[in-house]
Amino acid sequence: MDYAKVSLEKHYEWKGKLEMTPRASVDNREALSLAYTPGVAQPCLEIQKNPDLSYELTRRWNTVAVVSDGTAVLGLGDIGPEASMPVMEGKSVLFKAFGDVDSIPLCIKSKSVEDIVNTVYLLSGSFGGVNLEDISAPRCFEIEKQLKEKCDIPIFHDDQHGTAVITLAGLRNALKVVGKKKEDVRIVINGAGAAAISITKLLLADGYPAITLCDRTGAVYAGRETGMNWVKDEIAAVTNLDKKAGSLADVLAGADVLIGVSAPGSVTKEMAATMAENAIIFACANPTPEIFPEVAKEAGVAVMATGRSDYPNQINNVLAFPGIFRGALDARASDINDAMKIAAASALADLITAEEMNAEYIIPAAFDPRVKDAVAAAVFKAAHDSGVARI
Amino acid sequence: MDYAKVSLEKHYEWKGKLEMTPRASVDNREALSLAYTPGVAQPCLEIQKNPDLSYELTRRWNTVAVVSDGTAVLGLGDIGPEASMPVMEGKSVLFKAFGDVDSIPLCIKSKSVEDIVNTVYLLSGSFGGVNLEDISAPRCFEIEKQLKEKCDIPIFHDDQHGTAVITLAGLRNALKVVGKKKEDVRIVINGAGAAAISITKLLLADGYPAITLCDRTGAVYAGRETGMNWVKDEIAAVTNLDKKAGSLADVLAGADVLIGVSAPGSVTKEMAATMAENAIIFACANPTPEIFPEVAKEAGVAVMATGRSDYPNQINNVLAFPGIFRGALDARASDINDAMKIAAASALADLITAEEMNAEYIIPAAFDPRVKDAVAAAVFKAAHDSGVARI
Repeated sequence: MDYAKVSLEKHYEWKGKLEMTPRASVDNREALSLAYTPGVAQPCLEIQKNPDLSYELTRRWNTVAVVSDGTAVLGLGDIGPEASMPVMEGKSVLFKAFGDVDSIPLCIKSKSVEDIVNTVYLLSGSFGGVNLEDISAPRCFEIEKQLKEKCDIPIFHDDQHGTAVITLAGLRNALKVVGKKKEDVRIVINGAGAAAISITKLLLADGYPAITLCDRTGAVYAGRETGMNWVKDEIAAVTNLDKKAGSLADVLAGADVLIGVSAPGSVTKEMAATMAENAIIFACANPTPEIFPEVAKEAGVAVMATGRSDYPNQINNVLAFPGIFRGALDARASDINDAMKIAAASALADLITAEEMNAEYIIPAAFDPRVKDAVAAAVFKAAHDSGVARI
Repeated sequence: MDYAKVSLEKHYEWKGKLEMTPRASVDNREALSLAYTPGVAQPCLEIQKNPDLSYELTRRWNTVAVVSDGTAVLGLGDIGPEASMPVMEGKSVLFKAFGDVDSIPLCIKSKSVEDIVNTVYLLSGSFGGVNLEDISAPRCFEIEKQLKEKCDIPIFHDDQHGTAVITLAGLRNALKVVGKKKEDVRIVINGAGAAAISITKLLLADGYPAITLCDRTGAVYAGRETGMNWVKDEIAAVTNLDKKAGSLADVLAGADVLIGVSAPGSVTKEMAATMAENAIIFACANPTPEIFPEVAKEAGVAVMATGRSDYPNQINNVLAFPGIFRGALDARASDINDAMKIAAASALADLITAEEMNAEYIIPAAFDPRVKDAVAAAVFKAAHDSGVARI
């Protein structure tokens, strides 16, 4: 199917992919007096006395804002706020279909970190959480950091953390398939965008000791003089501790795992062939991966994952964000922290039994009906265990 | 019925009065590829080339933001953003039920004019219009004015203009009932809040020459030294041209029309009795009007309207805003201007034929099924005639 052509036709037909539906009737005078004036004054007064009741008496408990500035939309780059709306509406459809979460797509007409932070913060009393989407790096890190400090609801940049959760889930199972332990493997993460940084941090938080991040300049290390920023400085302080310099090809030699969240075709067969025995590659560039599975197999790679639905082991964000927000909303969590992300990854990984697991089945399928509840339950529990749950 | 008690129970039951409903399916891989990646890239690119296509390829064409800062909610005053949400959700339900308009309730956590203007402006690419709601005067005037200058979508403060439109509609018919002409009547408007100011401006725009505004200090006139602000200065320059000073009782003597958008019980039987023969009173304070219809009748008043549903001639905003936005959205209007408001008022007034019309029937009922289409069609036409329509 020509997805571009058919999708455009369907979008003209849909005229918007979501709409508001009343849950209260106003079709006679009495109903109107209960859903609106004069009756509505009473729930207002109750919330005024106790603002937490906004989670009981309005839709806040189940509502997430999907917020973008349109600067890093899909692989299209900075296409502007209006043009990002079809993606944000689509995301909202996924939230409802895969997580029973109501969400409101909002596109912000500014690229200023301050503007975006202020706008989201000022609206945060209307929502139970905020999903940041398709905001370019390194602004996305600063925006998320500031919002997490200012807001008492979960702030979650899905391009970072959704991908990181699924990558961690897949990596756990891939290591089982090849019989290696996280303490022993040397991991290269190629890319320094939103997903790469978050994957690095989540793997560190889950106890993977030997990670090297690579960007266009090559391996990132403390004290490198070109192409650094505050985020890479932070990462450099806790990765690549022997400060190995060099190109991707240099650091890849002998590595056990490559996680590519970078550019199409950036890994050659020859480079893959220099990796350790039973190597694992997650090639997430989409639709054209860093290296195609067929080619990687020829180079001796044991386990491959990509972002594509037509190969095994798809890293698809829809596996994570709906269940993560479902669990966070159900716990009325004030944050989505590392413990909750690691719990989500464990729940995803554990859906595949040891018997079922093999090199072509390390990640559940996007439409596996068990995913939402498993992820939501794990996140709900982790929110309680880590002290951020409020109910 | 104890509306307060039952409404609170219903709000606990509803857990939010509206939710998002997908219009596109994502229940299999192919559907997902059309509503979301990779297909969704194509509508994004089309909008990037031509931002107007955001009205064709997303829900923008039918979506209005309902925005409040919670400072003047119903008669409850400044109860804060979270506590205003039950009203905003209710408003959104009315938008859908009475106007087929999708709307998104947003409560802003700031009372600063600058913050509110920036927040709404930065989000304005996501909507086809903005309904400001329950924002206190005089900030509401400044916020609306600045937003109208900055945004290319309609900005409409319903507490001002909705009430003004229905008042104008009712006044036209009331004058027919008593056989007076707009050129000849002397009108007193009591109150200096959002509704009073907008009613004054709309009556002026529609050619009522003799209006005096009264606030707590008394009649407003150019050069008055106490209790003025920039909005009242503007009004004083074009009303009460003989600069009559005095109390409400003073200016009411001999007046043909009193429009009260002020305090409960602020007009006594004795004051009403001093008005001209065949006087008209709109007593909009709610639920307790400035003067009750029974009392006004005893004082010789000919036509009465109130904000209450249990008396004839209810000034109910639901008569205006759904149809006004329906017409403005259908015309893809860049503004809702005076011509459109006057057209809405004419359409409302004209729904009552000369034969049907009497002192107890000057305004259509809230559930009159003809209202939306009549108002929407008139507003749509006026948008075209006044040059603000874009389709």
